[in-house]
Formats: sequence, C-alpha cells, structure tokens
Amino acid sequence: MRLDPEIITEIEKIIPRDRVFLDLSERYSYSFDASFGQFLPDIVIQPSNAKEISQLVKLANKYSIPVYPRGSATSLSGGPLPVNGGMVLDMSRLNNKLIIDRENLIAIVSPGVITGDIHKKAEEVGLFYPPDPSSSHVATIGGNLLENSSGPKGLKYGTTKEYVIGLEVVTPLGDIIRTGGKTVKNVTGYDLTRLIVGSEGTLGIVTEAILRLIPKPQAQKTLLAHFDRFVDSGHAITKILASGILPCAMELMDNACIRAVENFSPSGLPIHAEAVIIIEVDGHPAAIEEEIKKCEALCIEAGSVHVTVAQNEEERLNIWKARKMVSPAITRMGPTKISEDATVPRSQIPAMMERLKQIREKYELNLVVFGHAGDGNLHPNIITDKRNISEMKKVENAISEIFEAAVELGGTLSGEHGIGTLKSPYMEMELGEVGLLMMKKIKEVWDPNNILNPGKIFPTLGQTKVALT
Amino acid sequence: MRLDPEIITEIEKIIPRDRVFLDLSERYSYSFDASFGQFLPDIVIQPSNAKEISQLVKLANKYSIPVYPRGSATSLSGGPLPVNGGMVLDMSRLNNKLIIDRENLIAIVSPGVITGDIHKKAEEVGLFYPPDPSSSHVATIGGNLLENSSGPKGLKYGTTKEYVIGLEVVTPLGDIIRTGGKTVKNVTGYDLTRLIVGSEGTLGIVTEAILRLIPKPQAQKTLLAHFDRFVDSGHAITKILASGILPCAMELMDNACIRAVENFSPSGLPIHAEAVIIIEVDGHPAAIEEEIKKCEALCIEAGSVHVTVAQNEEERLNIWKARKMVSPAITRMGPTKISEDATVPRSQIPAMMERLKQIREKYELNLVVFGHAGDGNLHPNIITDKRNISEMKKVENAISEIFEAAVELGGTLSGEHGIGTLKSPYMEMELGEVGLLMMKKIKEVWDPNNILNPGKIFPTLGQTKVALT
Repeated sequence: MRLDPEIITEIEKIIPRDRVFLDLSERYSYSFDASFGQFLPDIVIQPSNAKEISQLVKLANKYSIPVYPRGSATSLSGGPLPVNGGMVLDMSRLNNKLIIDRENLIAIVSPGVITGDIHKKAEEVGLFYPPDPSSSHVATIGGNLLENSSGPKGLKYGTTKEYVIGLEVVTPLGDIIRTGGKTVKNVTGYDLTRLIVGSEGTLGIVTEAILRLIPKPQAQKTLLAHFDRFVDSGHAITKILASGILPCAMELMDNACIRAVENFSPSGLPIHAEAVIIIEVDGHPAAIEEEIKKCEALCIEAGSVHVTVAQNEEERLNIWKARKMVSPAITRMGPTKISEDATVPRSQIPAMMERLKQIREKYELNLVVFGHAGDGNLHPNIITDKRNISEMKKVENAISEIFEAAVELGGTLSGEHGIGTLKSPYMEMELGEVGLLMMKKIKEVWDPNNILNPGKIFPTLGQTKVALT
Repeated sequence: MRLDPEIITEIEKIIPRDRVFLDLSERYSYSFDASFGQFLPDIVIQPSNAKEISQLVKLANKYSIPVYPRGSATSLSGGPLPVNGGMVLDMSRLNNKLIIDRENLIAIVSPGVITGDIHKKAEEVGLFYPPDPSSSHVATIGGNLLENSSGPKGLKYGTTKEYVIGLEVVTPLGDIIRTGGKTVKNVTGYDLTRLIVGSEGTLGIVTEAILRLIPKPQAQKTLLAHFDRFVDSGHAITKILASGILPCAMELMDNACIRAVENFSPSGLPIHAEAVIIIEVDGHPAAIEEEIKKCEALCIEAGSVHVTVAQNEEERLNIWKARKMVSPAITRMGPTKISEDATVPRSQIPAMMERLKQIREKYELNLVVFGHAGDGNLHPNIITDKRNISEMKKVENAISEIFEAAVELGGTLSGEHGIGTLKSPYMEMELGEVGLLMMKKIKEVWDPNNILNPGKIFPTLGQTKVALT
C-alpha cells in the first residue's frame, strides 16, 4: 500500500513532523528484525505517549492502515516486521518512566525502557527482576512483555508473564485501558494482563507496565560439567531436580555448539564431549554451598567426566563467558541463522536431541543445539545461506520436522521466541482446529479491522509450511 | 424455568439415571454455597468424564439451558450458585486422576480432586504445590482453578494461576480443547490457560489440569508479634520486606478479630492489642534461622510490644492454631457472615484499615478484619443477620464503601474470592467502561448463547449496588 497524502496530513496533526519518517532511507532501517525476511513500512512514527498512540490507532482503523509497534527489534520470530506495510510505531521515545517502589516490591515502567536497566535499577536497592532474555542489554521491556521472552531463569523463577501484574494498553480500537494493578492478587474479571502479555502485539500496544519484584538472592554458585555421552547429561539434570534442588539456571550445549564456541573464542571447553551443562544455584550462602556440592556429586554419579565448580566470581563469570559466546560464535558460521525454540517436557530432552540428530543427518544441515535444559527449552539453530535456494528448501523441511518432533514429544513450537511470521503454519498441529479458532475469535472481536500487527501468528488458509524462499 | 420431559429424556441418553437428580430434596442441597443467597437448580447431574460434559453442554446450547459447574461449593462469592436455575454439574465424580510426575515437576489432576490431597501426594515425594486456600482440605482443585483462589502464600509463591501450565477444557459450545501443556515455557498463541483460570466458570469447564510443582522447602520458622498501635504492624511488614526477606506468610488480625478468637477458643492472644501479625519464613535451615531473628528484631524496632518465635513444631502449630480459629470464631458470632477480600497495595494497608474503621463506626456494624498482609489481601468480614432487613441495607452501603476505598487506594475489589454474584455492580468502578467491555466481548464471542454460569460476574444494566435483601 501507499499512504494517501491526506492521511499523512492527518498523522502530522497528531505527531510533529520531526517524529514522522517517510524517506526510503529512514524506513529501510525499520524493515527487518533479528529473524528472517525484510518488509518496508510506508511510514515510521515515533510516538511519545499513550494518547498519541490512541489517536494513531483510531486513524489506522478509519483508513485500514496496518500498525506495527516496534521496540529494539531483537525479535527472533518476526514480531515487529511490517509484513503488510503500513505504519511502524517506534516505541523508543516511550522510555521516561522507571520507578522502583520498594515498599510494594514493584517497578512501574514505560515500554521503551531497556530491560537491563530495570535489572540494574532494581538491584541497586536489593531487589530483583528475574526474567533475563539474552538480549536484555538492548531489548525493550515492551518487546519482552508482548513476546513473553524469558531466558535461562524460567525453571526457578517462571517466565516474564509471572512478573507482570498490571498494564496500560492502547486497544486495537484506540481506547486506553488499564488491566490488573499494583497487587499480586487480583481476580476482578478476566486476566487481560496475561492475555495481552505474549500476544505478540496483536491484541494491544502496551504503554506502561507494573512489574513484580522480589528480593535479590544473596549469592550464586556455578558449575560446569562435561559429559562424553549426551544421555548422561539428561540424567544429571533429572537427578538434581529430583533431589529437591531448584537451580536458577541449567544450561546445555551440544558438541556442535561446543566446537562453534571453541573455534570462535577458545574457552577451554572439551571439544570431544557430547555435552556440557552449566548449573547455577542462588540464595542464602549456606544453602547454596551445600547445594552446589550436591549438584557436583550428582553430575559425577550421572557419568560426568569432569566437573568444575567456580571458586570465586572471576571463575563464575568465566563459565558464563563460554555460554555467552554461543550466539556470536554461531552467527559467524554463516550468513543466515535460523534460531528455533522448540520446547519439550524436560524428561524428553534426550529423545528430542536424538530427533534433532536424525534431522541434521537427513538434511545434511549445520544444526547446532544449546538451550535452557532445566525447563526443556532448546534452541536448535540452523546455520545456512538464504541465497542458496536448494538448501533453503531443505531448511523448510527440517524446521517442519523439528516442530513435529517437539509436539509429538508433548512439547510446544515455541518456548519464548513467539510465533511471529515463522511458525504460524504449524499452530494448528499443536493447538487443534478448535483451540486455534478460540484464539482467532478473540483477535477478531477485539480487532475487527485487523489493524494491530496483521499478518502475524495466525496461518493463512491452506498454509502448511513456512516459506523461506 | 422448568425442564421439558423431552430434554430430560435426552439427558438420560447421555448420563445414566442414577447420576441425574430431579427431586426437590436432592436439588435443594445444590442451591447454596458458602456465600449468600439460595437458588434452586432444575436438574443436578454428576458427569464422570469430559465427553459427557461436552455432550451436555451441546444439549444446553440447543435448548438454552444454563449450566453451573460445581466443586465442593466453598465459594465465598457465589461462583457455583445456579442463579438462573437450569443444570448443575456436580464435578465430584471427575476425581480419578492425581499423578505426580517427579521428573517433570508437574501434577496432572482431575478437577474433582481435593486440593489438600494434591498437597499430600506432592509432599510425599519431596515436592510442593504452594497455593493453599483455607478451605483446601475440602475444596476441589477445579473450583480453586476457576476462582484462582490462593491463600496466604501469594506473597512469596504467587497465586494459583502461577502454577497452572495446561488445561483440558470443555468450551461453552461443547468442544473439548487442550491449552498450554507440560512445559513452563509456552508462547504458542494466546494464553488461554490463564484466561480460563479465574474466569469463574464463565468461559469453560476444566476437565483436567497440569500443575507446576516445586521442591518442598526444607524447614519453616514462625513468629507472632503483638502491636499496641495498628500502624506499627504495617511498618513492621514494610521493614521486613525492604530488608530482603520474603516470608512465605505474613498474616494480620485486628483487635476485633483477636477478641473473636479469644471468645471462641482462648489461645493466649493479647485482647488489648490493636493488631497481631504472624510471620513465617521457609527454606534452608541456616537461612531461615537468620531470617526469623532479623524479622524479630525488625518487629521490635517497629514497635512490637511482644514477639514470640516458635522454638519447635508444637509451638509453631500453636501459633497457626489461633489463625485457623478465625473463621469458626467469626461464624459463631452471628447467623450471617459476609466475607470480603478487598486487596490494596501493601503500603496502603494502614490507610485501608483506617477506612474500614470509619465504615465500621459509620454503620455501627460488627466488622472484623484479618488477612494476608504481605500481599495486601485483607478479609473484612461483616457479621450480621440476613433476616434483619434494615441492618442488611446498612451492610449493602458498607460493602459499597469498602470497594470504593480499595479502588481509591489503588487496589482491587477481589484478591482471591472472585466477583460471582456479590461484586458485579462494582466492576466498572475498577475496570472502567472499556475494560469491562473488552471482557464482555470475550464472553459473548465464546459463549454466544450465554450457557456457562450465566448471571455471574457481569453487572446487569443499571445495577450499581449489591442487593442483599
């Protein structure tokens, strides 16, 4: 679509000209995210408050203009991509509020605030906001909320959703509403807060959020364990959880991942090991001292050939350094990276790893696996080149098989990245026809003109596979 | 309404005659719950599986028969009351499944299972299901889920909702769907699980649930502190939370409540104190030993005139005994008890207590307050006699003012009891016109014939106050 000059004039009545971008060069930088594909918006707008957004959404309804809210665009599933053109709302100017309310253990934040800044500000006063997606130093809390992005701490602390107790939202028709509030307990009517969190921007635009905080854990202890046999790492994880310990992180890297890291930045990882796991416990110093020793013993009992327990903060950060190298290491391996987040019940991790191995061999793809093993959230990454059409056809088939495996093993297409543009064809496989229809009914009744983030999450008729070429 | 004999014949094709109740004497026992009011159903049915419920709901849609699912009917807000007659579904026969899956830290349960049995079975293998409404020894998990009932542990562990990761549900049109699954992380589409949990039976009938479990805390420590001045108890709570301690319970009783307990069953509570608080910490023995000492010191610093720390399990249970006496003590005080659960941000507890005091004096009512102070969830209870029409008029006004106070202080009408029949006139005050409309739209599009729990949660046109006479 192209925007009528009259519409642009109306927009400029709402937003000053210096926050409206129409030039190709300006719009270009809003045409992609950290996933796959590129789509040019017709106009980019930087609103600075809920009222402006409300007026823009009303205008969008009047003229049927797609509206795409956008944070830092670190999405791995296409959340902010303006697939139908229209209007991108760059939310970066809604970043003025970051209040830590110690007495009520809450934070009140604007959507454009960087998640890492919430961590810092809470920790300064001894509080803690647990969700920690790996992009939290650049990602906005608004994007985190709408995608329900979580990171490694889901096992002990739950996901982003567990920490959102209230929202201010611009609805798909342009009204401003408040959901939930400042209390953890609130059962007045339906839980619109949790319906909107994780809705990938299709049900509302968050303009303020109230987050629950908890006291900051006093200390951490971390270990790294090597396994010659992948299956033994699975047993170690199960034994630890069955022993009554709830680590705050249990991270897993497979052999391909270990090799990628060692090629990129040698970190002393064992390149012949089938798996390494990182386990971190947090809490009272006396408690975690005991717990880490028990974790060490259980890893050895499960067949670990080598366990290192970090003896000080430097050693601890060193263990995490290897884990943090995974993404840059993989990115360097090829021009195109497709990052999935299929999640299975944790007891099915060994079975899922076996299925991933078969898929890698069948399609002869560069498939690297790491992830948050404690909550079953794996990250199979396919390193490829989107210009190689015949390989991309193989990638399409491999992705379909990854999703089939996850669902067959009792899991889900997506643990934390969202459906976006890349997983919609597979939704019915997981949700069933009626389950999917129940979701669509909510979308249709709230957003009758299909204004908010159109082209996302719901499959188009007859679509059964993602198209990457 | 009266049911046509043809409809009864159709019902008996789905459910054997011995699980269908038509006699007045049988229907009578399904006409009330633990709240207020009495409504006779036309028929009571005991289904035994999801398929039967699906068929009954389809039939109900065909003939426009209201459907009222019912657990143990411990609801304090009228959740299961068959206000429009029709069909009560007694869910007690759906109680065959209670599986603890240690490897995946989950429980799979039928809705008719008693919540206390889930606690027991989880704890037998070292696991823990935190939500613990005070009726958990008789209430069903199905009722807990649909009302999102929580109890004292909300502060540290969150509410029921935070522990439900998957459901099997019969939809308002009689389809059987599954939401969520066995993984804590799942972002495939909208969060229908959390939409249905807390929907008070208006959006679906839960026929199976997957609950997240955590390792059982190793130990507890408990203290009881007396305060001559109410405001000091509020300061003690704030100081403790600001110190980095997150107790698993912080219970509060006001003077009227203390006197009620001491009249009923002398427990050594200080009858002149304006408030007592009970604080419990749980976790690693070394950690809680330190924490309880710190809590004791902070209570004294805040002005507590007497603190008792339980030195053994017997003393601990003794402290809790006084708290558990509150409900029976209050019930004995008068024929009619109206139990509210207005919840405010915890920093507003002293202000809310002041407002409650004013309301008590203005209407000269027997108003007793206790509650879960840590999460701001107060339980103002009005002891009255529903046969005294003029007093009931005062009660209506007092309830309205309680809700106004809670909302004005940034809180909510209901922390854990639900809206049911008693709070619907006040919903718009908290949610606003559009917020309420967004909820109604979901109800209308999912349940076009208004079959599931009709007469609940949404106010009828022009209704601005609860009618108790």
